[in-house]
Amino acid sequence: MADKPVKKVVLAYSGGLDSSTIVKWLQVELGAEVVTFTADLGQGEELGPAREKALMLGVKPEHVFIEDIREEFVRDYVFPMFRANTVYEGQYLLGTSIARPLIAKKQIEIAHKTGADAVAHGATGKGNDQVRFELSYAALDPDIRVVAPWREWDFKSREALLDFAEKHQIPITKDKRGEAPFSVDANLLHSSSEGKVLEDPAVEPPEFVHMRTISPEAAPDKPTVITIDFEKGDPVAIDGQKLSPAALLTKLNQLGHDNGVGRLDLVENRFVGMKSRGVYETPGGTILLHAHRGMESITLDRGAMHLKDELMPKYASLIYNGFWFAPEREMLQAAIDLSQEMVSGQVRVKLYKGNVTVIGRTSPYSLYDQELVTFEEGAVAYDHRDAAGFIRLNALRLRVKANRDKRGAA
Amino acid sequence: MADKPVKKVVLAYSGGLDSSTIVKWLQVELGAEVVTFTADLGQGEELGPAREKALMLGVKPEHVFIEDIREEFVRDYVFPMFRANTVYEGQYLLGTSIARPLIAKKQIEIAHKTGADAVAHGATGKGNDQVRFELSYAALDPDIRVVAPWREWDFKSREALLDFAEKHQIPITKDKRGEAPFSVDANLLHSSSEGKVLEDPAVEPPEFVHMRTISPEAAPDKPTVITIDFEKGDPVAIDGQKLSPAALLTKLNQLGHDNGVGRLDLVENRFVGMKSRGVYETPGGTILLHAHRGMESITLDRGAMHLKDELMPKYASLIYNGFWFAPEREMLQAAIDLSQEMVSGQVRVKLYKGNVTVIGRTSPYSLYDQELVTFEEGAVAYDHRDAAGFIRLNALRLRVKANRDKRGAA
Amino acid sequence: MADKPVKKVVLAYSGGLDSSTIVKWLQVELGAEVVTFTADLGQGEELGPAREKALMLGVKPEHVFIEDIREEFVRDYVFPMFRANTVYEGQYLLGTSIARPLIAKKQIEIAHKTGADAVAHGATGKGNDQVRFELSYAALDPDIRVVAPWREWDFKSREALLDFAEKHQIPITKDKRGEAPFSVDANLLHSSSEGKVLEDPAVEPPEFVHMRTISPEAAPDKPTVITIDFEKGDPVAIDGQKLSPAALLTKLNQLGHDNGVGRLDLVENRFVGMKSRGVYETPGGTILLHAHRGMESITLDRGAMHLKDELMPKYASLIYNGFWFAPEREMLQAAIDLSQEMVSGQVRVKLYKGNVTVIGRTSPYSLYDQELVTFEEGAVAYDHRDAAGFIRLNALRLRVKANRDKRGAA
Amino acid sequence: MADKPVKKVVLAYSGGLDSSTIVKWLQVELGAEVVTFTADLGQGEELGPAREKALMLGVKPEHVFIEDIREEFVRDYVFPMFRANTVYEGQYLLGTSIARPLIAKKQIEIAHKTGADAVAHGATGKGNDQVRFELSYAALDPDIRVVAPWREWDFKSREALLDFAEKHQIPITKDKRGEAPFSVDANLLHSSSEGKVLEDPAVEPPEFVHMRTISPEAAPDKPTVITIDFEKGDPVAIDGQKLSPAALLTKLNQLGHDNGVGRLDLVENRFVGMKSRGVYETPGGTILLHAHRGMESITLDRGAMHLKDELMPKYASLIYNGFWFAPEREMLQAAIDLSQEMVSGQVRVKLYKGNVTVIGRTSPYSLYDQELVTFEEGAVAYDHRDAAGFIRLNALRLRVKANRDKRGAA
Repeated sequence: MADKPVKKVVLAYSGGLDSSTIVKWLQVELGAEVVTFTADLGQGEELGPAREKALMLGVKPEHVFIEDIREEFVRDYVFPMFRANTVYEGQYLLGTSIARPLIAKKQIEIAHKTGADAVAHGATGKGNDQVRFELSYAALDPDIRVVAPWREWDFKSREALLDFAEKHQIPITKDKRGEAPFSVDANLLHSSSEGKVLEDPAVEPPEFVHMRTISPEAAPDKPTVITIDFEKGDPVAIDGQKLSPAALLTKLNQLGHDNGVGRLDLVENRFVGMKSRGVYETPGGTILLHAHRGMESITLDRGAMHLKDELMPKYASLIYNGFWFAPEREMLQAAIDLSQEMVSGQVRVKLYKGNVTVIGRTSPYSLYDQELVTFEEGAVAYDHRDAAGFIRLNALRLRVKANRDKRGAA
Repeated sequence: MADKPVKKVVLAYSGGLDSSTIVKWLQVELGAEVVTFTADLGQGEELGPAREKALMLGVKPEHVFIEDIREEFVRDYVFPMFRANTVYEGQYLLGTSIARPLIAKKQIEIAHKTGADAVAHGATGKGNDQVRFELSYAALDPDIRVVAPWREWDFKSREALLDFAEKHQIPITKDKRGEAPFSVDANLLHSSSEGKVLEDPAVEPPEFVHMRTISPEAAPDKPTVITIDFEKGDPVAIDGQKLSPAALLTKLNQLGHDNGVGRLDLVENRFVGMKSRGVYETPGGTILLHAHRGMESITLDRGAMHLKDELMPKYASLIYNGFWFAPEREMLQAAIDLSQEMVSGQVRVKLYKGNVTVIGRTSPYSLYDQELVTFEEGAVAYDHRDAAGFIRLNALRLRVKANRDKRGAA
Repeated sequence: MADKPVKKVVLAYSGGLDSSTIVKWLQVELGAEVVTFTADLGQGEELGPAREKALMLGVKPEHVFIEDIREEFVRDYVFPMFRANTVYEGQYLLGTSIARPLIAKKQIEIAHKTGADAVAHGATGKGNDQVRFELSYAALDPDIRVVAPWREWDFKSREALLDFAEKHQIPITKDKRGEAPFSVDANLLHSSSEGKVLEDPAVEPPEFVHMRTISPEAAPDKPTVITIDFEKGDPVAIDGQKLSPAALLTKLNQLGHDNGVGRLDLVENRFVGMKSRGVYETPGGTILLHAHRGMESITLDRGAMHLKDELMPKYASLIYNGFWFAPEREMLQAAIDLSQEMVSGQVRVKLYKGNVTVIGRTSPYSLYDQELVTFEEGAVAYDHRDAAGFIRLNALRLRVKANRDKRGAA
Repeated sequence: MADKPVKKVVLAYSGGLDSSTIVKWLQVELGAEVVTFTADLGQGEELGPAREKALMLGVKPEHVFIEDIREEFVRDYVFPMFRANTVYEGQYLLGTSIARPLIAKKQIEIAHKTGADAVAHGATGKGNDQVRFELSYAALDPDIRVVAPWREWDFKSREALLDFAEKHQIPITKDKRGEAPFSVDANLLHSSSEGKVLEDPAVEPPEFVHMRTISPEAAPDKPTVITIDFEKGDPVAIDGQKLSPAALLTKLNQLGHDNGVGRLDLVENRFVGMKSRGVYETPGGTILLHAHRGMESITLDRGAMHLKDELMPKYASLIYNGFWFAPEREMLQAAIDLSQEMVSGQVRVKLYKGNVTVIGRTSPYSLYDQELVTFEEGAVAYDHRDAAGFIRLNALRLRVKANRDKRGAA
């Protein structure tokens, strides 16, 4: 397609050097008017400077959008995902994956508000994030034009890119001249580090790449015990104190941080076809995963739980691959959400030097029946002889098959 | 069915009080000749006394079978299960479930050798083990008679059972008069505790129920780092030392024990329909699970890994429910085993106060390609522009759908 | 459990000989007051006689319940099931399975209305229906007592049962003295035949077992073409004529009947563990299955369709096994229903001597895009070069793996 | 990537106009030496002319490869796929999809033999076949260069392409000047037609697009009954006559053709993201699918069958999408093949005007047990009372849940 020129483009803008260079490139090389969108997702950075920098780059004041979307992020993205006990490839809590759809959604909204005909992101051409952004754009506005500068520009090296930045008066702090020893993504759910010093999976990650947690070794010698209240599958209070979604996750992050909880060193399979190595820190999310499973363990029916467990790997892959807004993700969510109606109650969790241990669960909706399970046969409706029939009919097909196999050809 | 009288029955015999009472009950009430089978599965008990007790109960010397089946257990049951990274309900490593089929198999073999017409086990009428034993019996010998004393006898109370034991000169140690505060199953893979003091899932398990691990709190302040070598998905060496399957697991158990690794406090769903609470200790298995995933992370193709992850919950349920010898378990095993051809190499693991952390993986069969993943675009066959096409075609159906949804009825 | 005596029991009552004998047995042997529930599910029998017979057996007039539940049956059970394109073991349209939960639900409602403490059904001890009834009872009223006469009474032979009937003045038509050559279940969705003359799966079913369809051979030489309108996944009109659910299915049945559509001769696997052979006739349902797939083919996104296809076998097994009211069935239904929002439009179907052929589909919500698919590259957003990137990234992991496999150990 | 020039390329060559034009384009525009590979896959065309044309185009005699691969195709590709009862999107028998991997494999073999550095195919840029070819190439030789002329050349229109052909003395029959009213792919398993006159899914396909079957209407008024023998899941004889795989499928095709069997008019979802409409004729395959299911119905255990049914949609998608040589397809195949050990015996099938009806199945390995299923309780090991226990334990979790739901918050 010989694309028409881009007139106005909404960029997911962090305020950093690369992000600023993209602004300039969009203006200079594409001749486009740039609208910046900077989200507070809990990445732990001041957003004030992002506004100043955008203005300095010539973005019109009415085109600088800065928004605190932490509550929406946790309530409508993180919590729904945790209802499924979601882990990718057995381990990864999808902290980066789950943020992209929301950023994309906000960009599209701003594009519609400002009459922009395009959106742009700063993700590179080898990663998953480009896919997540662009699949989300496509699902939310099928006609919007997408610009992916890292795939499109001609800079042959990082040096060339920095030269372009310098030429356009983008300030480059000294340490940026040299390359960062690894790259980082962060939001309220997690921070991830990858690249450079982390590229050899045979070598342990250096301590300095961690930013959200102290190490288990450095954590206190005394356990911390907390209680988490759940309502319909979502956490709503810590130690009896009701908290908004973002406030609750923030508090769990602090608790996790302090107790060395939530580090993961993983080689994973990217959607684009290669293996990569990442170091993830998800302190609050790690606590939440354990606590949620603990809550479900007494409130969720076996059939519902096993169905959830069977669906989870696919659900996780959909999120990892960027299909949050795809109909099949929504179908799975509908099934998952229905199961959470009674996942309410309280879980006690012990945090200790990297360990998260559920040490108590209670619920007004408990399916755990002490009378039923006790060794003594009681008043309760369980007749030991039922087990004989249960086993015999479950065994019937095996017995028929064994007889067939034994006799060989009849 | 008005069953014919049992003539000769092979009992899974532990040598304990209950087990001995069953011998007597089978002899006295059923008028059957009893053959005892006592397996060394690594439960950590002397088997000598089991022989003496059996003889004392009147079992003929040639009918007392005692066998060390630890190597077969680990090689043909535990390791194949770990190839699938198997966990039941997200957490349980199936230490009890995986031992039952092998015990059942041995009983059937002995029944054929001794001309017995029946087999018997000491599992109770509310648990999973009765199912696991009896489904295995059915699959291995469809015509064998099954006796399940705990479902069949008439003792109205534990007192009545003890009276019967006493009447038949079965020695009852004083502490057995009172009831044990919880019940235990153990083998080389794990020990499990349940019942009595553990029945309230709101209450943390007391420290004294643990027998295989010290607590993370009690573990040393210094990490232990080990390397595990894998061949075709199975561990074969620790720190360079080749070990037999059982020897290797024994060593991992010691390492886990010493570092407070492998405790699990779980409310789970039994196949017979109720929730129960168990405390599991799987020190070596927990290390193995992490190490195996680490090994797969660089040697297993994404498609294979994701298929394995999708199949695992069903595979785990089959084992938990006692369907080890069912054709569908064997089908899944065939798929899983095929995937492990190249899962060979070395994993370094750090053990520290309950934590198991993979800190390095290497393999001659690695699929991880540092050149491919590096941020710099290199000689390697990855063209950033490919990503654009990849994304656009993945997005196409979403875009078409979004257009449809936007226009409403055409 | 030594059950307490049954005081009042709601029986699923057909008015037939066996059913009437059960009434008497419940009255005489159990000493229970009997409430009869006779449902018009479209089985094609007059219900008037059922009332007379019940009264004649001594059932109080206020305890004779007769209800036409055809609309509820089709709307809330049949149609939701067809949204999933449900077939059991690749072929069976579940006509019997889907009716049982509704009958059970009505019985429970009547039990609550009349203060009955028990429910009873006339299903035998080897079949699936006993399971379907009783799982539904359990899910709807966990405390209700269940009576299953066929499993509980002592009649040693059919002769003994008839003697009992005769002794209690239940009229036995001459042809009932001899045994029926096969047994039948029927409702608006299908009729099934099994047993006796059908028990040898090597032998073709005799023509006389069929009651809902003429044979393809006997059907007219000229095709019949109809159009079916769908709204949100359910059929709502035939040839432009809006029809209620039951009226629509009735009409489809007639059309299927006349064109020899919907016969199935199947050996299937029962939940209770044995294989059985049934002959099913589902004339309208067979048409509906094809038409619904045709409607989905242009309105359903690929991701949604493939997810549905993957979930279907489990969904079918749940219904077949009697778990309609289980939470996991409801979770799957939530996912399925969400997918059907836009499955609206019109399908043309040709019926001809047993064949059902979709020959046209149109929808205001079509996802089929003629411009996109045409061989000519047009204005539409498809760039052939995108395919190169799409393929290359999909191939990347295969290529990396092939290189690994080629080089062997590095 | 600035690709190096192609030196020698192995083209999948049909001998047709487009295919010949590609030869010339590869020679002229790429400057490559062309090796042609023409496979007899049972497409029903003479291969002699392909050789002549290739020579006429300047291909060296030693570079013209023509091979009859029908037996390998059916034995190693078609039959393994049918063991899984594979259908894509509920209906499509994958006749085109299953042929591509084999053609690709042969091309790679010839490339290695002739020292070629590239392979090429004639599939267009919007279809699935390009993906299937190229994923297979990648899996079989990760370093081979791939040329996809339809995506790479610059012809703006069909006219331009024909001009190029004419300029290079490629004979163009008159009817090719105008465009074909639809395009065709054919092999021993099926023929498919799509495009042009078939592009409107609202319109019934014209009779003239069909080439493998007469219409049901045109088929004889008398049924044809055949028996098919199976061994380990594969058909081996028709009416008692042992036949090689290709001969057997050829004969089934004739039988299907004569009885109007195997037509399908489908709107399907392509891997590249769009919906397309195809008309498929799979006469022998349709018979085989029914017969194989019939054979399995008495020889395959329920657990194995249900697992197969659950895996099938994924298996079908893998084949449809071109992942035949991916490890996850091989894993599924291992599971499927293991299940077929005892799928041996005989099935009788009636063919009549488009209908395929299984009317009898026998096997020395039958799991169907007439004594077990009969209404009379016999000597066989089925106790009606077992059903009570079976149901009660299956109901237990539903009952506990119903009690919980009833009481609301405790």
